[in-house]
Amino acid sequence: MFTPENKAAILVEALPYIQEFYGKTIVIKYGGNAMINDDLKEKVMQDIALMKYVGIRPVIVHGGGPEITGFLKKVGKQSSFVAGLRVTDEETVEIAEMVLDGKVNSEIVNLLNRRGVRAVGLSGKDAGLIAARKKLATVYEGDESKQVDIGYVGEVDKVDTAIVEDLLDQGYVPVIAPIGVGSDGESYNINADYVAAELAGALEAEKLLLLTDIEGIYKDFNDKSTFISTLHLPEARQYIREGIIAGGMIPKVEACLKALEQGAGKTHIIDGRLDHSIILEIFTSQGIGTQVVR
Amino acid sequence: MFTPENKAAILVEALPYIQEFYGKTIVIKYGGNAMINDDLKEKVMQDIALMKYVGIRPVIVHGGGPEITGFLKKVGKQSSFVAGLRVTDEETVEIAEMVLDGKVNSEIVNLLNRRGVRAVGLSGKDAGLIAARKKLATVYEGDESKQVDIGYVGEVDKVDTAIVEDLLDQGYVPVIAPIGVGSDGESYNINADYVAAELAGALEAEKLLLLTDIEGIYKDFNDKSTFISTLHLPEARQYIREGIIAGGMIPKVEACLKALEQGAGKTHIIDGRLDHSIILEIFTSQGIGTQVVR
Amino acid sequence: MFTPENKAAILVEALPYIQEFYGKTIVIKYGGNAMINDDLKEKVMQDIALMKYVGIRPVIVHGGGPEITGFLKKVGKQSSFVAGLRVTDEETVEIAEMVLDGKVNSEIVNLLNRRGVRAVGLSGKDAGLIAARKKLATVYEGDESKQVDIGYVGEVDKVDTAIVEDLLDQGYVPVIAPIGVGSDGESYNINADYVAAELAGALEAEKLLLLTDIEGIYKDFNDKSTFISTLHLPEARQYIREGIIAGGMIPKVEACLKALEQGAGKTHIIDGRLDHSIILEIFTSQGIGTQVVR
Amino acid sequence: MFTPENKAAILVEALPYIQEFYGKTIVIKYGGNAMINDDLKEKVMQDIALMKYVGIRPVIVHGGGPEITGFLKKVGKQSSFVAGLRVTDEETVEIAEMVLDGKVNSEIVNLLNRRGVRAVGLSGKDAGLIAARKKLATVYEGDESKQVDIGYVGEVDKVDTAIVEDLLDQGYVPVIAPIGVGSDGESYNINADYVAAELAGALEAEKLLLLTDIEGIYKDFNDKSTFISTLHLPEARQYIREGIIAGGMIPKVEACLKALEQGAGKTHIIDGRLDHSIILEIFTSQGIGTQVVR
Amino acid sequence: MFTPENKAAILVEALPYIQEFYGKTIVIKYGGNAMINDDLKEKVMQDIALMKYVGIRPVIVHGGGPEITGFLKKVGKQSSFVAGLRVTDEETVEIAEMVLDGKVNSEIVNLLNRRGVRAVGLSGKDAGLIAARKKLATVYEGDESKQVDIGYVGEVDKVDTAIVEDLLDQGYVPVIAPIGVGSDGESYNINADYVAAELAGALEAEKLLLLTDIEGIYKDFNDKSTFISTLHLPEARQYIREGIIAGGMIPKVEACLKALEQGAGKTHIIDGRLDHSIILEIFTSQGIGTQVVR
Amino acid sequence: MFTPENKAAILVEALPYIQEFYGKTIVIKYGGNAMINDDLKEKVMQDIALMKYVGIRPVIVHGGGPEITGFLKKVGKQSSFVAGLRVTDEETVEIAEMVLDGKVNSEIVNLLNRRGVRAVGLSGKDAGLIAARKKLATVYEGDESKQVDIGYVGEVDKVDTAIVEDLLDQGYVPVIAPIGVGSDGESYNINADYVAAELAGALEAEKLLLLTDIEGIYKDFNDKSTFISTLHLPEARQYIREGIIAGGMIPKVEACLKALEQGAGKTHIIDGRLDHSIILEIFTSQGIGTQVVR
Repeated sequence: MFTPENKAAILVEALPYIQEFYGKTIVIKYGGNAMINDDLKEKVMQDIALMKYVGIRPVIVHGGGPEITGFLKKVGKQSSFVAGLRVTDEETVEIAEMVLDGKVNSEIVNLLNRRGVRAVGLSGKDAGLIAARKKLATVYEGDESKQVDIGYVGEVDKVDTAIVEDLLDQGYVPVIAPIGVGSDGESYNINADYVAAELAGALEAEKLLLLTDIEGIYKDFNDKSTFISTLHLPEARQYIREGIIAGGMIPKVEACLKALEQGAGKTHIIDGRLDHSIILEIFTSQGIGTQVVR
Repeated sequence: MFTPENKAAILVEALPYIQEFYGKTIVIKYGGNAMINDDLKEKVMQDIALMKYVGIRPVIVHGGGPEITGFLKKVGKQSSFVAGLRVTDEETVEIAEMVLDGKVNSEIVNLLNRRGVRAVGLSGKDAGLIAARKKLATVYEGDESKQVDIGYVGEVDKVDTAIVEDLLDQGYVPVIAPIGVGSDGESYNINADYVAAELAGALEAEKLLLLTDIEGIYKDFNDKSTFISTLHLPEARQYIREGIIAGGMIPKVEACLKALEQGAGKTHIIDGRLDHSIILEIFTSQGIGTQVVR
Repeated sequence: MFTPENKAAILVEALPYIQEFYGKTIVIKYGGNAMINDDLKEKVMQDIALMKYVGIRPVIVHGGGPEITGFLKKVGKQSSFVAGLRVTDEETVEIAEMVLDGKVNSEIVNLLNRRGVRAVGLSGKDAGLIAARKKLATVYEGDESKQVDIGYVGEVDKVDTAIVEDLLDQGYVPVIAPIGVGSDGESYNINADYVAAELAGALEAEKLLLLTDIEGIYKDFNDKSTFISTLHLPEARQYIREGIIAGGMIPKVEACLKALEQGAGKTHIIDGRLDHSIILEIFTSQGIGTQVVR
Repeated sequence: MFTPENKAAILVEALPYIQEFYGKTIVIKYGGNAMINDDLKEKVMQDIALMKYVGIRPVIVHGGGPEITGFLKKVGKQSSFVAGLRVTDEETVEIAEMVLDGKVNSEIVNLLNRRGVRAVGLSGKDAGLIAARKKLATVYEGDESKQVDIGYVGEVDKVDTAIVEDLLDQGYVPVIAPIGVGSDGESYNINADYVAAELAGALEAEKLLLLTDIEGIYKDFNDKSTFISTLHLPEARQYIREGIIAGGMIPKVEACLKALEQGAGKTHIIDGRLDHSIILEIFTSQGIGTQVVR
Repeated sequence: MFTPENKAAILVEALPYIQEFYGKTIVIKYGGNAMINDDLKEKVMQDIALMKYVGIRPVIVHGGGPEITGFLKKVGKQSSFVAGLRVTDEETVEIAEMVLDGKVNSEIVNLLNRRGVRAVGLSGKDAGLIAARKKLATVYEGDESKQVDIGYVGEVDKVDTAIVEDLLDQGYVPVIAPIGVGSDGESYNINADYVAAELAGALEAEKLLLLTDIEGIYKDFNDKSTFISTLHLPEARQYIREGIIAGGMIPKVEACLKALEQGAGKTHIIDGRLDHSIILEIFTSQGIGTQVVR
Repeated sequence: MFTPENKAAILVEALPYIQEFYGKTIVIKYGGNAMINDDLKEKVMQDIALMKYVGIRPVIVHGGGPEITGFLKKVGKQSSFVAGLRVTDEETVEIAEMVLDGKVNSEIVNLLNRRGVRAVGLSGKDAGLIAARKKLATVYEGDESKQVDIGYVGEVDKVDTAIVEDLLDQGYVPVIAPIGVGSDGESYNINADYVAAELAGALEAEKLLLLTDIEGIYKDFNDKSTFISTLHLPEARQYIREGIIAGGMIPKVEACLKALEQGAGKTHIIDGRLDHSIILEIFTSQGIGTQVVR
């Protein structure tokens, strides 16, 4: 289909991007369809391998909600939800950790290693990577809101990136499960977008890429012409306040803001349903999705 | 109870051992009662922390059979056994991996980190640490024996210790779950004694310590006076052939032999039911258990 | 013309080649049309930049015969030739050196630097890189042959690659003019193919690429169907003896043989008249030209 | 007397202290009874060896007054004293240096090396370690005081710790004789407490330990109940002004103050007459002696 | 002529200077008679070799005006001059670069290598060493002055000393031709004094030595008694304003000022017609020539 | 007396020697007149400083017999001699050590430091540098010979050069007193020539220089015309056997042989009574004294 000459030309076209990102750290939140569909999964692994081999330092943070749900069902455990967050008792968080760390994480690590990338799986427990604290759910009743304890759902208290940087410096690709440790040693399940954001900030990453199941952000979701390619920090904050950014988009955009505030260079909400969405974003002139920048 | 002077004297008594093992690698197979009893568990963690801080490079390999059995029961999965080995279908090995890597391993890592030791959990998948192949069970029918496929039970094909050595060199303590990867990327559950042995050999460890639930090896189990303190390699092989070493002791002794053949210095089968059995073995003149040596 | 998806797919297709050559040294003899045609020149520079950025260590050796001829004409100097070699008196070699080192080399260095590659120009004089000795021309008169002194035409006596390796280790791209130094400090003009070959051998380069103005080697130049994709060392020697390889192809193939004998991995005679011929050879499955291998 | 279990427990009890001081520099002023009594001497050497092997960087500064006195007597040299300081003519300082550097220092170095610690003896002359200036004695006559020149008694002018740090970094234990060099190259005998203090300050040592022949400091020396465990800097200064700290305690406490002012972490006046007083102070919860802190 | 004892005494006399300049960078502008006369040339090479071997880091910048003029004549190219600067069209700058880089530079490099010094030739193009911009000539017509474009005559815009420092750190001696690169990749011929000055400043060199064909600076050139040994920066500026320093001395003194302003330690205008003028200046108490200092 | 030009010429004359010995280790046995005469002493220090600053790695081993004798007299201790060796009881060796290590060594270290050379004094006790064993004296009675115990006179058993090499690598000059340690920790006084020889061998030094009080070796001491400039190993052995080399020359030549046999490059017996004898030997074409070579 492509002549060799075409191929060479396209490789050369990627050169400025390769030069730009050489030696830079890029954090990828891997989740959604790209983690379920086998063909997409394969392509994400290729993308990460390519990044690694052209000199980028990729850090992967993954989610795993559907797999957790599946496994809870298997052990006959019912989940209840408060304000969209799963009520997480001790048994639930134990299963979440097993699924995230012992299954999802292992599989990603394995896929990368099989492609010649030396990946190493981590959870927030390894070398004290993620210190966490309990996150309360906010429940609205009429005009009132109250904070509800829903168990072992956490938020990032502090990240200690030493192990991540040591592994990167020695050429490994860290793959991180979003489990944090509380001050009494207890485990917390944390939203992977936020974990990726905190890491991108602490590592002063060049970019944070959030793989999602949407094309990006629209001012009006029903009007495709309102697509936003670039969103600046103040604007983003305003859109959240005004409710233009709402629902499932809020944590994504908040993650971007948090990463930017803490030192990341640029952040991107991209459509993980596209083939090779990571490579498209990083190595071609076609910016895809919505970038949130300073 | 002890005067300060007594304490100082005892610390000084440990000095020759501290000097001897400074900078040396010691592989510990952690399992049995020492992993179940909370008090013993706490003491093993203290022992490892002490080893680390006096300049030893400890590497932990853990088992987890009882926890796997417990979890399989939870999901309503029946296990059948052939020749003492669990028949391990795809679902079983997946659960075994989740339990070993996502629960047992995480917990050990967490306990060590909480004691100021920077531990990092690994499975055989991380950076291609353990390549595995299927292990067949040997079934005897009368005088005949045959090899039976019992699924994803594996044996070590090759270890690539790069990640372990990189972590040790940077001051981390690697904690390793006995999961290996087959040539098609499939997971295998491997006996942790053998994994520890292969690692001790490949790392040319000074020592391999196997924590067990017995005092050591007896020529005649019913006659306490037949306790064997030191067993030499040829003797050990002969005792296995002659059936003097039998049953559950066979894999332990075989692990010792494998470690010695591949480069480990000394190997020890010690009683993990004793408080601080590791420290006793390494830092005092009271050799405990049975040592298997060249 | 290409969709973003196509582009991404092509980048990914290059991944195995990028992995294969990561950290490897590749010596390129740059000459012929690719050095004259501005468009081709531009593409060669892009190719080298790409190689560099995906982790390859490129070393460039260039010729410059036509430019020397042009400049000699300018100063009104007539050249005579013996056995295809230019008779090179002191004035001629001085001009050759000025053109090669002060013009051709500088221009290549400049083009690479302008593309973000830190190139450094060298001649064989720098840090004693190329020690040379006089090369006599062989003239046949009937059945007799005799050796004729044609002045400052040299052959490589010894290469000291320290400066090349130091520059590579620090991330520079060495660009080398084919001038050698004799034992009395005199300059010699040396065939660039041979210089590239000796360097490829001494550096134990993964590959030597000779950019030429032909497609590759044919058993019968008039019969396109006799094209040779792969030539093995003994075969190559035999074809030279039998006169199947003749004329201008002899030095090319001899250079390949010399490189292989001295430690280079593979050698390739490729068609520098094609766009991005270097990338095609290295990063795609379409082998182009003729490879000479062990 | 102690069961193995007791021993293990005591080793584990030391763990938090081992962790706390890992990689830290501790300066020890070695003198008094602990340097005379052979059994105590042996125990100090064990203590230093233990410190070294659990990762502490010990630096030893020793005195030697009694040995100097002994030797002066041997050569029939009478000493006179002014304000408690020995009048030190050229012959006296030469003998002092010989005794300190060529006898006392050598012996300590030798004892440590025989215990597997690689000790290296230094005096203030080595690599310009201690620059000194003359110290005048203050003599009181009625209400008047005057400064009297008593020869080659010095005080520290400047320390250049390069050689000490280079040796520590390479794993050696520096043992330092309290000899300084004046600006004309002349030798000065300096009080070892002050030398240790200046070194502890310049090295920003974690601790300075002064081994003395008393239990510590009392507000009233005749009332054991007035023992001071901890003395803060301002308090210490006040006690000296008020004469509560007097006599031989003044230089000890002044040394502590100097070390603290110049960057040492904590300072301890401990009873060198106790067995293993160093280990007791560093590795057990029984603080012994008096600590002077900020 | 000299007894061995005399020789030893003279070597020892140089010791304080050797100590003073150990590990320091000294930039030498090499030009004038010292570059033409074969005997002087030989002595300059010896001087540089000696500097290198006693631990100095020499950096050589050379001119080459006469050689350029000679070569332009050879190709039948007439030069016209405006305000003392050669009008430099494209052909002229090309020839200047060839002569400077491909002949003069190569020869110096070769001479040094033959004396056991590992020299490496650079031009401003190598690794982007010298970014240049066009320099206009100032022409006075009566009271008016105007700026005239005289082609590819440049001035230093920016130096990037990375390649120079990398080579120095690895023990090479960089030899630099005064060619700069414009923002469109075009070459500029730059006055070598200014190039040396900018490099001395950017490298924060200990010294800049300008080899000239005069003894130094006189207040009145006709009165030898007005020789200036030391000139301070403000004085130098004043003398230029007042016309006391005029003609060919202006660029020399301006180069010294520029070097001092940008970080060089001291600058020296010395008489390159003397044997071993560099050694005289650096290793003996006889300051020669005029030093320009802060 | 010398013109600047003369001085420069002489410096340049030294260049080939400076190049030859750059980075090489040279061991100097310092003793005899050169250690007593203040003017010679000063010149030896200058020579060592020069060596150091031109890139040589000097190691000094010193004697001190006359100073020991002087001090023994001072304490009223009579010495008796057997076969030319001092009978050395415990008190004697203690004093010898004090004098060598605490006086002679300190003084040399001090002199060097005052000349800007970072010298560090060592004795054989530091870091286990010299392990010694008792040396018996051979006494002849008629045709019979017997071995007599004369106390703490030792010979080198083994040298561990780690501390010497660590100091050299960090730019220090080690100055070594010829005291060794026996297997029970006792001190031995060892002939400094032999210590220097063993060190030169173990360090694979380029040269061993023995400073003596004679011009070199003569075949017939009474006939100046029989001076030997170069002595080869077999010849030297023969001359000793035949008694041509006799008396005080025997230990010198034996030291040379020992150094050569164990890896030193060349050895030189030179006349320390000459000014700057070290520089003369190393940096001029006038070989002085007798060289003993392979």
